[in-house]
Amino acid sequence: MKERPLILISNDDGIEAAGILSLAAAMDGLGDIIVVAPLHEQSAVGHAITMRDPVRARPWPFRVPSGQVTAFAVTGTPADCVKLAMDKLVPRKPDLVISGINHGPNTAVNIIYSGTVSAATEASILGIPAIAFSYCKWGGGDFEASGRVARQIAQRVLKGGLTPGILLNVNIPDLPFDDIKGVMITRQARSKWEESFAERKDPYNRTYYWLSGTFVNLDTGENTDVFAVENGFVSVTPIHHDLTAYSALDSLEKWNWDITE
Amino acid sequence: MKERPLILISNDDGIEAAGILSLAAAMDGLGDIIVVAPLHEQSAVGHAITMRDPVRARPWPFRVPSGQVTAFAVTGTPADCVKLAMDKLVPRKPDLVISGINHGPNTAVNIIYSGTVSAATEASILGIPAIAFSYCKWGGGDFEASGRVARQIAQRVLKGGLTPGILLNVNIPDLPFDDIKGVMITRQARSKWEESFAERKDPYNRTYYWLSGTFVNLDTGENTDVFAVENGFVSVTPIHHDLTAYSALDSLEKWNWDITE
Repeated sequence: MKERPLILISNDDGIEAAGILSLAAAMDGLGDIIVVAPLHEQSAVGHAITMRDPVRARPWPFRVPSGQVTAFAVTGTPADCVKLAMDKLVPRKPDLVISGINHGPNTAVNIIYSGTVSAATEASILGIPAIAFSYCKWGGGDFEASGRVARQIAQRVLKGGLTPGILLNVNIPDLPFDDIKGVMITRQARSKWEESFAERKDPYNRTYYWLSGTFVNLDTGENTDVFAVENGFVSVTPIHHDLTAYSALDSLEKWNWDITE
Repeated sequence: MKERPLILISNDDGIEAAGILSLAAAMDGLGDIIVVAPLHEQSAVGHAITMRDPVRARPWPFRVPSGQVTAFAVTGTPADCVKLAMDKLVPRKPDLVISGINHGPNTAVNIIYSGTVSAATEASILGIPAIAFSYCKWGGGDFEASGRVARQIAQRVLKGGLTPGILLNVNIPDLPFDDIKGVMITRQARSKWEESFAERKDPYNRTYYWLSGTFVNLDTGENTDVFAVENGFVSVTPIHHDLTAYSALDSLEKWNWDITE
């Protein structure tokens, strides 16, 4: 008899966030669930890993509608959570690793800053099908529609698998489920942040800076993640961790690389 | 009269690291230099940015052979350094942003964990030519050959520019300059880390874990970054921050995406 699928769940908003509670609840019945997530919020940590300090894993009470599931809160980053889970905490190799639901979009350049995406990326490096889910409302809100979408997409990946090394970055628009227009397969939009650090004085009259900025979409393509969610679609972007810019290889080959000149 | 090029220098090993001192010295005479680097070591922070706390920038004494250069130590990540420098610290838009020299390789999957690479990536997002330099000896050592290579490559990029959004990830083998076989244009090797967390007890008999692992190259290609440095070549990999796995778009389009079923 085939074992039930094992689904490992993580996030970057922390184990007590509404988004991960909704994600785990949405998976209820699809397989065995184990939650390994950061003890504290870890937004914008990118693919950070903890090398110079120890990490700890604390068993954590975590309920889905059908009952209690195994869960650990980890004193580390999302990537740490997946690495530690795979080495020490899971009872067997997971069939699927999912991350989220993030309290805000992870489209365009935001992907590279995202701890939510990094947890899923870490799983894909280890050869496990993985999905990052984000709800496109800053600060979160009602995850009901996002949970239903996540369940639908998780079922498809459990059935169809993914090419090793490729994961799905899913962004769900801020709409009631019945108003979502469907799923669009997209690419990452080109974009940047225009920084404007707040410059202030502390109570001791010393200057400090606080990061803020404006998101600038540089991409008018109708097949991008940004376009999809702005137009009411769920965006599904296949991503990977091969950063090679293949298009640039040929022209660079033509440069003069004689460094002994 | 055209202004001298402005070269912004950062790293992840911290402003006092031997690698960034060597890199700045190697640029001496190529243009005006400004150093904006982390106050403390920030290895393996990936593309983390600091959003929930302020950051500070402290003027820092920093010498290259021809004299003193402007420098700031920042209480943040490499990506923070570049963002803050661009918004508040540089006198004009830099012509080149370079990061390193990293004390250890940034080949294969290590790219995604690397703070050194993230500083250069941040610049490329902002449309500035950027290069990350790494010396392929863990913990660093004699940066003389790496500095000479860095100068050669920086001169070429100052002259030829780079396609916007593309940066160079350069790995320099641990060899005397005269023994380096040349430059190879490469792609990122497929690889992973096989984690084995050390599991220990603290003085209060509580369990903690400490990340360690073994690097596993999964890629026998002779055009990879790993192959190049193992065979005595400088590896130059064009990379970008578009994580879209274009090869997967078509097959995903063929799935049944009717989520209302």
